[in-house]
Amino acid sequence: MQERAEQTRRSLLEAAASLFDERGYAGTSISDIATRSGHTSGAIYFHYASKEKLALAVVEGHFATWPPLIERYAGPAATGTPALERLVRLSFAVARAFRDDIVVRAGARLWAERTLIAAPLPPPFVGWIDAVTAMLERAHADGDLAPHLDPERAARTVVCAFFGVHTVSEALDRRRSIEDHLTDLWALLLPSLQARPAAEELLPLARRG
Amino acid sequence: MQERAEQTRRSLLEAAASLFDERGYAGTSISDIATRSGHTSGAIYFHYASKEKLALAVVEGHFATWPPLIERYAGPAATGTPALERLVRLSFAVARAFRDDIVVRAGARLWAERTLIAAPLPPPFVGWIDAVTAMLERAHADGDLAPHLDPERAARTVVCAFFGVHTVSEALDRRRSIEDHLTDLWALLLPSLQARPAAEELLPLARRG
Repeated sequence: MQERAEQTRRSLLEAAASLFDERGYAGTSISDIATRSGHTSGAIYFHYASKEKLALAVVEGHFATWPPLIERYAGPAATGTPALERLVRLSFAVARAFRDDIVVRAGARLWAERTLIAAPLPPPFVGWIDAVTAMLERAHADGDLAPHLDPERAARTVVCAFFGVHTVSEALDRRRSIEDHLTDLWALLLPSLQARPAAEELLPLARRG
Repeated sequence: MQERAEQTRRSLLEAAASLFDERGYAGTSISDIATRSGHTSGAIYFHYASKEKLALAVVEGHFATWPPLIERYAGPAATGTPALERLVRLSFAVARAFRDDIVVRAGARLWAERTLIAAPLPPPFVGWIDAVTAMLERAHADGDLAPHLDPERAARTVVCAFFGVHTVSEALDRRRSIEDHLTDLWALLLPSLQARPAAEELLPLARRG
């Protein structure tokens, strides 16, 4: 019974996410979500109370995607691989999630439309800047980061540039070419980040996942 | 008489822009704009017909800011200065416009909220990618661009990264530190773009305007 309720919640969340992704928050109604999910409006109000709470659940689902990915590429189990290589691999994993995961895509769109949603949303970017700073500090400690760079400022720049690639890729072709755009970005950034530039060796490997 | 109508239109546009910038499209009403501008709601409907048309005029005002700036830094009169230096100078001029010009700021926010506005908005990024491509092709022809780079792909990457700096700067501190963030971005990108890396000479000069 509990499991069935969990399945209903998940299917409502995914139906809502696909509509928010296509039409935005204002363009999506509870009755659209009912139709798309095959559940009743009553089921939506029972499980999520309001469209606002459902949007908040999608945004929280988006943000909940990152800690396990960060753990996988930056956690204790990953430290056999050089930090800059892990950072590049992580960036491609995030790009694929943005391209393929409907909750991640919808959460990003809702976040951009955050002024419409009264529920408070988690602050963006700060967690990413912290995670990337930790990876660049590791690269610095290992002698792999260009020695004149400040890891925190470089991390903020990497997060900015990465976010820009997402936004522009979304506007140009719904992120279909995001892996190519990300490869072009790293081809310009890596030679400045690496103590011994070798982007042409690292990039083809890291892109594979 | 005509001049007075022009003044009224401009003061309505600026009042609307300051409210759209603060509160977004959905959070701003015609009566808020009337109060802020000191004009009547009737004057707003007379000059702009609807909130949607007023929002469109703000977005068009945003887009109209760029051609004269691009002309100044990339047009025939500017060609005495190396193209990469002109590109960096242009980026700081754009950053300052985003920080200080209320119509530019509001236009950017309305563009992010474009799903709410039925009026069709101009396509973003494409014009910037073309303008930056032309500057990098010039740098390439002058032997100043790293010879292995494709000007168009490098231009797309520069536009992506630049746009990301804007979005993150806005979220972190309403763009107060945007010139510092932009300096950090160029410090990573320029060594890869330049045929003979010398970012440390170019950046302090270009930042001044």
